[in-house]
Formats: sequence, structure tokens, C-alpha cells
Amino acid sequence: MSAWFRDGVACESIPIDDRGLQYGDGVFETIAIRDGSPRLWRYHVDRLVEGCKCLRITPPAETVLRGWLEHALRSSAADVADCVAKIIVTAGVSQRGYGRLSPSEANTLVGLFPTMPLAADAYKDGVETILCRTRLACGSATAGFKTLNRIEQVLARSECLAAGAFEGLTLDAEERLICGTMSNVFIVSNKVLMTPSVERSGVAGVMRRHVIDCLEAAGISVQIGDITEQEFNAADEVFLCNSQFGVLPVRSCGAHQFGVGELTRRAMALLAGNGIGECAV
Amino acid sequence: MSAWFRDGVACESIPIDDRGLQYGDGVFETIAIRDGSPRLWRYHVDRLVEGCKCLRITPPAETVLRGWLEHALRSSAADVADCVAKIIVTAGVSQRGYGRLSPSEANTLVGLFPTMPLAADAYKDGVETILCRTRLACGSATAGFKTLNRIEQVLARSECLAAGAFEGLTLDAEERLICGTMSNVFIVSNKVLMTPSVERSGVAGVMRRHVIDCLEAAGISVQIGDITEQEFNAADEVFLCNSQFGVLPVRSCGAHQFGVGELTRRAMALLAGNGIGECAV
Repeated sequence: MSAWFRDGVACESIPIDDRGLQYGDGVFETIAIRDGSPRLWRYHVDRLVEGCKCLRITPPAETVLRGWLEHALRSSAADVADCVAKIIVTAGVSQRGYGRLSPSEANTLVGLFPTMPLAADAYKDGVETILCRTRLACGSATAGFKTLNRIEQVLARSECLAAGAFEGLTLDAEERLICGTMSNVFIVSNKVLMTPSVERSGVAGVMRRHVIDCLEAAGISVQIGDITEQEFNAADEVFLCNSQFGVLPVRSCGAHQFGVGELTRRAMALLAGNGIGECAV
Repeated sequence: MSAWFRDGVACESIPIDDRGLQYGDGVFETIAIRDGSPRLWRYHVDRLVEGCKCLRITPPAETVLRGWLEHALRSSAADVADCVAKIIVTAGVSQRGYGRLSPSEANTLVGLFPTMPLAADAYKDGVETILCRTRLACGSATAGFKTLNRIEQVLARSECLAAGAFEGLTLDAEERLICGTMSNVFIVSNKVLMTPSVERSGVAGVMRRHVIDCLEAAGISVQIGDITEQEFNAADEVFLCNSQFGVLPVRSCGAHQFGVGELTRRAMALLAGNGIGECAV
């Protein structure tokens, strides 16, 4: 199963002149479809709209976008009750040249892909990670947003695949921990829960937002700030989150071992009770 | 006139699954065609190949690439003796996900566009520029290369268009001068010629390389290093270069005025004698 729709119509290609290809001029969301509905839809739409604002792209109205997604789900020959939906909004076609004078008419693509559920062991015992050699540039004008400029993630993720690890963690050029190639990261040190700021680089994941909201609602505060490589290595617990798998404990990063501790279990239980069924172990 | 060819065949679209669109996973060159031949071909190919190496993409052999470019030029209905050729090499189509285990088979696109010669006044009196608010991130893993991740240039160039300036100059997040949105920049201070390092961000332009080579061959040394905003503002002369227009004096950046001085004229005369006819004024 893999199918694309463009502005609601089945489609396999886009014009070469599309600014999404020419300059990576666009944003995207990777949404978990569960029981036929998009999970964390509100957060995905919020980030998509903010990203479009940053790039001065006029996105489709939320109801139109939702309609196109539901049309794609209805049109699919495969069973899409549980799947991955990728929504891409590009700045559309324009004349050659980087600049755009007015906000661009968006070109919206919706793709459906099979979901890849993880083994229960991953949630119980944790996953293996590596620290990537690829560094994220600091001070990105689009930090936090999920733009189509993802070469850093391509390079880092390729390192991770070569090492056979579940995820690769990335530092920025100033050696601060930022995020995983496809996830955000939380650490616990001396019972304090922390996650890196994504104001200078990295992506502000929708599941990161959901984890922070669920934890804070349960009276557990999350510190957002700078985390050095040394602080990361000395952590008592580490966990990852993303829109597809929810929350996963990290049992190692290279030679460093981490325990699957109390706060990680607490976070997973809270998420399991807040719509993220995968986290129930 | 505007025509695209894919791997040598006329083509208007690419698969949505192409990694060039999904992640900006690719590189490009914008080449000046003069008298039917690509100018600075050697430098363009060198940078394309190095960029592909950085991204672990296997580019087409140089002879194949040249053959596709010449086929495109021969196939064009319009007069393409003088035009702009854009070559895009993407990492091709792959499964969903950032990572790639092996070097990708490239997908190569060649597009032809009309050239836009500048008025002689621009070369004689210089052009107006602005300093963009958009900052370039520092410590990019692909600094110097012309990848398809160009959102910073889109944002900065859009500022420049809105201001009605010929070019927008960009600083990095640490306030160092780096380059223009579509050009490299040189400054002259107390008879010393300098150009910013592009090792942490920015693009190492082919015309920048040609300017440095021509000047050094004439016994004029070029310092490559960090240039602060203050140093830039205090410059005696400023000039831009790119593959299309060659070398252009800068007469202002916002409220700052610059003279069109002796070293700029010398550089233009040297370039005019080394294949860049536009610089003869």
C-alpha cells in the first residue's frame, strides 16, 4: 500500500517546477491513523499552519485538508484503519528564482503508507540508539518546523541504519543534544525530567507536545532547555517519542546503558491513558 | 522558453516519492550557456560531484551529464545560444523514511530558461542591496554545497524582492557576513580584498572560485575568513559575483554607500579577459 493524492485527486507525480522540489519550499506532517481517524490532528494542523506562516504559504483551510485526508482514506483499496498519512504542503509552482513576492498558493499532497507496529519488547525493554556524527546547524530560521529541508535528517538517519540502531540522536554544531532523526528525546536526571529546546534547530514534535501536556496535567513538570552531551551521558533514564510509536524507553546509546525507570513508565502509562494505545505495556 | 528533461528525455513531472521533493535530498547547478556551451563547466561538475559525495548520491558520469545537457540544448525550439541551464540531481525514489543504506541511483533533471542580461548601468554604477533579516544557520553539514535545501534563500530573497533591491546579503546566526541570496560577496578594505568563508554556511559559488583563481593568477591575493557586519559596513568597495552575471559592483546596502573602486574594476577587467564577457564595461 502506498498511494498519493494531490488536492484530493489520485496522483503519482508533481510538476518539476514545483517549489517543493526546487527549494524544499514547503512543510509536511506524518500522522498516525488509528481506527480510521488522524491521531493528534489538532497538534498536526497547528504545526502545519505555523510552518506555512513562517514560509508565507497559504495552506488549505483545515476543513478542506481534513476532507482530502478522509477522501484518501475512503479511496484506498487497502485496509487503512491503522496506517501512516503523510501530508505535504508546498509553495506550488512559480517562476525560476528563490524569491516569492506574495504568499504562495499551496500544492497539497496526501500519501498513505502501511504502519509498522513495533514488537512489545521495544516498549518493555527499550531500544538501542547511537549518537550521530552529523551535527544540526544552529540558529535555523525554521527551527521547530517540519519543512521539506531535511538533508540533516537524511544524513543522520543513514548513519543510524548503517549502525543497525533503532534511532540516531543528534547534537547541534555547538554539541547540545537536540533530538532523534525521527523523534524527540527526554532525559531524567536526579528525578528531573528534561527535553532539549528546539528553538535553534530540530523539530517540535507533536508527540513531544502531547507528552509535555500529559505530564504537566499530571503534576510532573518538564524542563525545556539546553542539554550537553555530558548531561545526556549521565542521565538515569532516556526516552523517545514520535507521532507513530508514542513513547519508547532507550536502553542504550552506543556504549552508554540506561535503565528503564520510574518516570519513563509513568510517562508511558499517562500516554496510554491519553489516546496513545501503543504505550500500554 | 522553459523546458525540462529527465535523464535525457523531455519531461514535465517527477514521481511524488522522489527524495528531492520529500527531503530536498539532492543538489543542483545553475549554469550560464554562452555561445551554445556551458560556461565554467569544470567548476560546476566539480561542485556537483562533491555535493553528491557529501549526500552519498551516485551522480551520472560527466560525459553522460554533458550529453544530456547538449541533447536538451539541441532539442529546444527556442534560441538557446545564450540561456540558463539548471541541472538537478536528486537521490531518486526510495521507501518512505529519511535514511538510505546504500548510495542512491540519481534522478537527473535538466531545465532550460531564458537568460536575463542586466543593463550596462548595473556593471558601471553598481547595484543596490539590502541586509536581510533572515539569518543563515551555522555549522551546516552541507555548507558550501548547492543542495535542494534552500528555504533560507527563499526567505531572504523574498525580503529582497519586497525591498526592490537587486540582491539581499545574509549574515549567519552569529552575525558574520556570508553571501548574497544568489551570489557571493567580496569586500575591499584598505586595499585588502576579502571574501567570507563558506565552511559553516552559504554556498561556494563557481564564479567565486573563478574570481579567486583569476585574481590570484594576476598576483592579487584574496583573504578568505570571517567578516563582521561592522567590517562590511566600513568597506571601501563591495562586489558580488554569480555564474550568470559575472561580477557586479555594489553601490549601496540599505543606507550604506560604497564607491565603485579600483580593485572592483580590476577584478571585472580580469574576468572580462577570462571568459566572462559581461564584465567588460
